[in-house]
Amino acid sequence: MIANNLFGACLPTFGNCADRYCLSGYGGGGSTMEEMLDLALQVPGLDGLELVGNWHVNDDNIHTVARMFRDRGKAICMLTPDLWTQAKWGRGSLASPDAATRQMAVDEVKKVMDWAAELGCPFVDVWPGQDGFDYCFQADYTESWKWLREGLVACAGHNDRVRILVEYKLKEPRTHCFVNSAAKSLLLLEGLEQVGVLLDIGHALAAGENVAEAVALLASYGKLDYLHLNDNYRSWDDDMMVGAVHLVEYLELAYWLKRVGYGGWLTLDIFPYREDGVRAAIQCREWMEAFFAAVDRVGMEAFSAAIRTADATQATALVRQALGFSSSPVAR
Amino acid sequence: MIANNLFGACLPTFGNCADRYCLSGYGGGGSTMEEMLDLALQVPGLDGLELVGNWHVNDDNIHTVARMFRDRGKAICMLTPDLWTQAKWGRGSLASPDAATRQMAVDEVKKVMDWAAELGCPFVDVWPGQDGFDYCFQADYTESWKWLREGLVACAGHNDRVRILVEYKLKEPRTHCFVNSAAKSLLLLEGLEQVGVLLDIGHALAAGENVAEAVALLASYGKLDYLHLNDNYRSWDDDMMVGAVHLVEYLELAYWLKRVGYGGWLTLDIFPYREDGVRAAIQCREWMEAFFAAVDRVGMEAFSAAIRTADATQATALVRQALGFSSSPVAR
Amino acid sequence: MIANNLFGACLPTFGNCADRYCLSGYGGGGSTMEEMLDLALQVPGLDGLELVGNWHVNDDNIHTVARMFRDRGKAICMLTPDLWTQAKWGRGSLASPDAATRQMAVDEVKKVMDWAAELGCPFVDVWPGQDGFDYCFQADYTESWKWLREGLVACAGHNDRVRILVEYKLKEPRTHCFVNSAAKSLLLLEGLEQVGVLLDIGHALAAGENVAEAVALLASYGKLDYLHLNDNYRSWDDDMMVGAVHLVEYLELAYWLKRVGYGGWLTLDIFPYREDGVRAAIQCREWMEAFFAAVDRVGMEAFSAAIRTADATQATALVRQALGFSSSPVAR
Amino acid sequence: MIANNLFGACLPTFGNCADRYCLSGYGGGGSTMEEMLDLALQVPGLDGLELVGNWHVNDDNIHTVARMFRDRGKAICMLTPDLWTQAKWGRGSLASPDAATRQMAVDEVKKVMDWAAELGCPFVDVWPGQDGFDYCFQADYTESWKWLREGLVACAGHNDRVRILVEYKLKEPRTHCFVNSAAKSLLLLEGLEQVGVLLDIGHALAAGENVAEAVALLASYGKLDYLHLNDNYRSWDDDMMVGAVHLVEYLELAYWLKRVGYGGWLTLDIFPYREDGVRAAIQCREWMEAFFAAVDRVGMEAFSAAIRTADATQATALVRQALGFSSSPVAR
Repeated sequence: MIANNLFGACLPTFGNCADRYCLSGYGGGGSTMEEMLDLALQVPGLDGLELVGNWHVNDDNIHTVARMFRDRGKAICMLTPDLWTQAKWGRGSLASPDAATRQMAVDEVKKVMDWAAELGCPFVDVWPGQDGFDYCFQADYTESWKWLREGLVACAGHNDRVRILVEYKLKEPRTHCFVNSAAKSLLLLEGLEQVGVLLDIGHALAAGENVAEAVALLASYGKLDYLHLNDNYRSWDDDMMVGAVHLVEYLELAYWLKRVGYGGWLTLDIFPYREDGVRAAIQCREWMEAFFAAVDRVGMEAFSAAIRTADATQATALVRQALGFSSSPVAR
Repeated sequence: MIANNLFGACLPTFGNCADRYCLSGYGGGGSTMEEMLDLALQVPGLDGLELVGNWHVNDDNIHTVARMFRDRGKAICMLTPDLWTQAKWGRGSLASPDAATRQMAVDEVKKVMDWAAELGCPFVDVWPGQDGFDYCFQADYTESWKWLREGLVACAGHNDRVRILVEYKLKEPRTHCFVNSAAKSLLLLEGLEQVGVLLDIGHALAAGENVAEAVALLASYGKLDYLHLNDNYRSWDDDMMVGAVHLVEYLELAYWLKRVGYGGWLTLDIFPYREDGVRAAIQCREWMEAFFAAVDRVGMEAFSAAIRTADATQATALVRQALGFSSSPVAR
Repeated sequence: MIANNLFGACLPTFGNCADRYCLSGYGGGGSTMEEMLDLALQVPGLDGLELVGNWHVNDDNIHTVARMFRDRGKAICMLTPDLWTQAKWGRGSLASPDAATRQMAVDEVKKVMDWAAELGCPFVDVWPGQDGFDYCFQADYTESWKWLREGLVACAGHNDRVRILVEYKLKEPRTHCFVNSAAKSLLLLEGLEQVGVLLDIGHALAAGENVAEAVALLASYGKLDYLHLNDNYRSWDDDMMVGAVHLVEYLELAYWLKRVGYGGWLTLDIFPYREDGVRAAIQCREWMEAFFAAVDRVGMEAFSAAIRTADATQATALVRQALGFSSSPVAR
Repeated sequence: MIANNLFGACLPTFGNCADRYCLSGYGGGGSTMEEMLDLALQVPGLDGLELVGNWHVNDDNIHTVARMFRDRGKAICMLTPDLWTQAKWGRGSLASPDAATRQMAVDEVKKVMDWAAELGCPFVDVWPGQDGFDYCFQADYTESWKWLREGLVACAGHNDRVRILVEYKLKEPRTHCFVNSAAKSLLLLEGLEQVGVLLDIGHALAAGENVAEAVALLASYGKLDYLHLNDNYRSWDDDMMVGAVHLVEYLELAYWLKRVGYGGWLTLDIFPYREDGVRAAIQCREWMEAFFAAVDRVGMEAFSAAIRTADATQATALVRQALGFSSSPVAR
């Protein structure tokens, strides 16, 4: 747990992270699912892990997987259909210009929904990362938008024991992804009650969003369902440790999570390429605890008062105080 | 006219442009409205001009202004309420944390709508540039969003001879503006039929949008009402001449404007700080003509075919051909 | 003082800040130099102020200015030649394509050097903000570079009681400034012992630099002469209060300032458009004190040890500890 | 050939491109070096190919490789030491905090220099992509800079039949690379005559540089040795086809390459993830031919005249004319 929230991590946090230059990975971490899971046990307070369909779960191993997690007392907090790791998805999944590929993507999501239901996992993360374009004159924006919507509608009611969430991202693996912001996600899901949104903090940062504003917006539409935590330098999804860069933004995030009454999962989606995954996960958790504690130190009402008067000078004084520094009174 | 579109310009194109360092302006252009208007006459094919309420139009001069434009055969294509040039709007207009300021903003918009109706101007541009925040913990995102919506609802039906358009922008004069993307504009205006969107190409570029995608999205929601043309380097609203930077994007824009059947205004919103405004406006118009001609050279169907197969290699070959270069056949 | 450094501010911190939309300013602050100076007195620990040549100082008022500062016990820490607020500099100063303008710029710098000497001010800040370009095919990069160098050489030895510093910036008021990074500044000044560098932290952030790395680089070439403090969101020179955004970077800055033994001025260059200048300056100073205190809390050696092993997990644990949060031991 | 320049490509252009999500690659291309080389033969005008040490060349296959290229009449234009694809380089190569790793890196470069000499390849590309940092407090900027310099000095004179070039890049695989701009490269190589610079156009774009300015700067220091061609959206090294985004910048690049008399290699460094490598390479070449032809259409002197007067309006008119559109005369 972190404050009142469940604490999760993507399983590959404890594996060997690769990038396009070092395809064999920077080393460290476990190789098998069981090894990664055992490393995860070393992280205090970890409640659950995310898995990827096919990659981690399939028809043959599903009972083994269920037992593996049950034995270790960990939940499977998310099962993600693999719509991006194979060449067949290279030009899109739910919004592929090829109708057969679109159908394949819908089938994949449905299959994973059923696996999730069987594993007692409440969420399925639809990340349409390959649905987008790289070049001008490469995408039919109007049709693609319809296809995305149709695909989600087709999946939405398939299994009422799991909720589909859409995860938005500005770019990567495409230079432009279609579903790239909180507002665009809400627009896409207008009237589609059964589908929610997964807010990845790093994706929001890279999309130029203020993360607290994204939280407030999604919550006001009833679609703040799940959070991915990580940090970056805003120009790319660096998937760094929490606490690496955006301390003020994370502090404001903690305030807004409390204010909108979020009580769901806080799940790490980091790529500790050159770091030990267990140590990195521990650091992330301690930072999140620190942010919530810092808000408590000042109190919700003190921040709310500064916000009501849009007083930036008072706001920054409170941030400093929240971080444990003595502050002279601001008033003159 | 530019192709099938009306061609406009903001009046200050022909004035003296200032920035925060050179507050007295870089020189050139006219000083009075009449001088600026007379300069505008030198731009071939210019159909109309945008004015700003109070700044250019007020209760006392409205008949003079009407005659001034009538005499010169130019339309007033847009009247923009001044919600940003005075200190009183510094912390917001329609979404100010101060209720009295919000009411003042609504009154201002309504007053300008009536002026517009009287001047035969069909559009009023609500640009909530001061509605946003600079610092974390400075804005109540949830309330601000409601206030914005309420303000627009209050104004929407005020005068049915003019249509309000919302102009979005990522930042400036605030470091963060609330209405910052095409998708967020559509979300804000959900179900509000009487209010449309003004797409400023430079704002879309600075917001990280693909402009053609923004056009397609707005058109599919029936809210592609009006366009502002300019260019920039994407990190700031540089308000440069059309043709300065984004040739491929502008070419794709021309294709999509034709495809969605846009037939409205193409209005320059440039700040020719160090350039002659008349010459700059002429260049912009020639670039727009060139982009439409380039699409015609290849033909809509050729581009559509490349798009249908998401074939980037073919797309780039067509772009080169559209620009008048001979291209070897792409097929192998 | 801030830790062992002198603490300064640009005089307009206490004036009325304007931008290109609100040219008359957002209100507040003093109007006359004396009013601004008296407001500055309210900031505890302020040692000096920066003035701009012509704007604040001229042949007629120089003795009055000297007395005004003497009477209030404040130093003039910097005198900046005005090479940017008038239309005549719009196409460049030291690197203008016009030879007469280049000579005018050299004369301006020399005149201000003499004024500075007379006022007992040790530094003259040459900020070639108008020296750059907006469009492709607008600048002769090779010639401009030579002109910049020649201009600096011409000024360098003019008055040995003052040291010229070059202040770099990526952009604004031009979309591209020639002297845009720490490395390019050093390259420009190669072998020119008499000229140093002014590091504006916001300029470094907007240029995509890591500020601590810029400090280390400039110091290793003996040209870390003076610092401007402010903060921004990296895409523009927002001139916000210290502590607004980049806490980790400022903490690392404090470590490196101590490590390279910097003992010069820390001068605010903020634009508190919508804030009270006095309160804003006080907040900035308290943040700087907090950063130095935070480094002391952990100790230089602890940070140095993490750096020696490039251990990011340990580094982030130390950052958290420096900010006053209890941290579990990192070791496993 | 492209105009007067030799035309090359990195061999993996004709292979199967992978990213961190699709590690097995998006398909297409050859698997073996010979297959890739045979695909390269289909690109008209291709003069040579770049290889990577160890990956493509080693002590065992060097004679086979030499013959493979000789038989097909292709040069090896560059041999790049592998300082980045293996976990052992994850924390740096020439500037690793570990002295043994630094020595290994020097040895690797020297070994590859000897291979290059044996293969008749004139250049060795030292790309210190792993030399940088991800987090604050992770790097000793002062020491790292010295180590980089020492490493290059150690290699520089090793084999006088090959010239070492340093390739700069802002980020990736690290979030910050030490050698990240043209200016910083020149600073690093000050006085080191034997080492030159490789200018990757995409790296310059992502570093926020104007590419023509980088060309002019490097040429004026005698270090414009070699060019990599590709395109991107400036926030990441997308390695897209030439002609994808930056047409005006590429046009200005062609002008400056002619002006500084560059006559070296123009080598593609693209990652055609979802495109056919042969078709993509052909498109890139045709774009480059188009840019040089466009400059010729207007003539060097016309552009030079616009530059001499810093006349942006004239400059943009010439760009339009260069692209084959009729332009009204600009003069008024």
